[in-house]
Amino acid sequence: MLYTAEILTIGNELLTGRTVNTNASYIASRLTLMGFSVRRITAIRDELEEIASVIKEILGRSPAIVVVSGGLGPTYDDMTAEGIAKGLDRKLVMNEDALRELREKYQTRGLPLTQERLKMALLPEGAKPIRNEAGIAPGFTLNVNGTDIVATPGVPREMESVLESFLNHMLTRRPPVYYYEESFLVRGVMESTLAPHIKGIVKETGVYIKTHPKGHETSEPYLEVQIAYSGENPDRVKEIVRSVKERVKAVVRELGGTLDRVQNP
Amino acid sequence: MLYTAEILTIGNELLTGRTVNTNASYIASRLTLMGFSVRRITAIRDELEEIASVIKEILGRSPAIVVVSGGLGPTYDDMTAEGIAKGLDRKLVMNEDALRELREKYQTRGLPLTQERLKMALLPEGAKPIRNEAGIAPGFTLNVNGTDIVATPGVPREMESVLESFLNHMLTRRPPVYYYEESFLVRGVMESTLAPHIKGIVKETGVYIKTHPKGHETSEPYLEVQIAYSGENPDRVKEIVRSVKERVKAVVRELGGTLDRVQNP
Repeated sequence: MLYTAEILTIGNELLTGRTVNTNASYIASRLTLMGFSVRRITAIRDELEEIASVIKEILGRSPAIVVVSGGLGPTYDDMTAEGIAKGLDRKLVMNEDALRELREKYQTRGLPLTQERLKMALLPEGAKPIRNEAGIAPGFTLNVNGTDIVATPGVPREMESVLESFLNHMLTRRPPVYYYEESFLVRGVMESTLAPHIKGIVKETGVYIKTHPKGHETSEPYLEVQIAYSGENPDRVKEIVRSVKERVKAVVRELGGTLDRVQNP
Repeated sequence: MLYTAEILTIGNELLTGRTVNTNASYIASRLTLMGFSVRRITAIRDELEEIASVIKEILGRSPAIVVVSGGLGPTYDDMTAEGIAKGLDRKLVMNEDALRELREKYQTRGLPLTQERLKMALLPEGAKPIRNEAGIAPGFTLNVNGTDIVATPGVPREMESVLESFLNHMLTRRPPVYYYEESFLVRGVMESTLAPHIKGIVKETGVYIKTHPKGHETSEPYLEVQIAYSGENPDRVKEIVRSVKERVKAVVRELGGTLDRVQNP
């Protein structure tokens, strides 16, 4: 059974190109290493109807997990909790545990719980808050028809804190799958020359091989070759990746290429 | 009339988190500065059916432009042209102009046009190739029911070359809109304290204001305040952004905050 995942990142700054979406790649990498297959990453604006409708679309594809990032803060344009509630046809309610966390973070410093601060404890009905150790706004999770939805703040270190806490303690189903990859660099072989050989090895072994061009195809051919596989037995997965790597290296040598610095030998 | 845009980035490396999607932010920034409103950025795997189905979804939302990046190369997993053709119910055909470009790039160097190399000239029926000045695989464009689709390679400098060539010479409809933003940094005011004031100014002026937290809400409040607006008259747009900036700065001073280094005065 495939454990699929989707990532939804919310924030106008992603759509104007102001912010590079490093949250998406952090989350994708973390989920991949846990054995999830990330199928789609979507970035949308801070808009209520848009958030609600994309949440519905994603749930229609029934992933095992959806990680949502951004829009949990105190400002007028933070509307992820409300958007998720709307997408699920649930009410937005004051969550007592989240409220306790906010009280602790503001009131113990003598700061009043204004309307903007209280807003961060308004979660979709049935959601469980996830403590934010690196900032204020709590994350939250809820399971809908077998899909774990987890919402994290957009500030990177807060996203990481909430995501790790979720993955380590609250994940409903953990994939029984191990993912492994290795890469190496090749000089002097064009991507289009290596292509038919790689196609043959992929077809025969089922291992994923991708060439990432780094130089210029004809004038200065320089490629990174990535080999990735996943399976239940970590030792077996590593062994398969390494044996395929040796086969590709042998082909590169036959084609007159040279192996550059190996990144993860 | 709103000129909406979508971006579709294709490549397994984006979904495993191996590659940070800097192409998406480059394209988003370029389109935003031209006056487009980027509504959605999607990243998916190199999978034929997935590409075809996402292309259909995007066209169903009728954006003015869709920029697709990645998957135009010579390898077995480069299948963007075929996926777009399938999504449009068009045939994939050998394009004579693209073939001429490949002949020039390979045969003039004494390199044969193998099957893998010829594949890069197979484009959806009716597509116009866009010369790739920075690499081999040509980009292409086609207009479907008023939506400009433009496909670029995934290697960043090749994407930039093809995209610029498209935007400067082949774009069907150019938005008559100018976008402008300024930012400044604030110390000593919590985001939740500034929030109600900003909400009021946004409501009154229609100007977009976003606070980006950079420090820690209660222990070391530090915010970047971004002010953005767009309209037909560049001078008027700048004037509005600057006057709103002064209003927000005045509020910050009243709240006891200090203005840090101004980024674009």
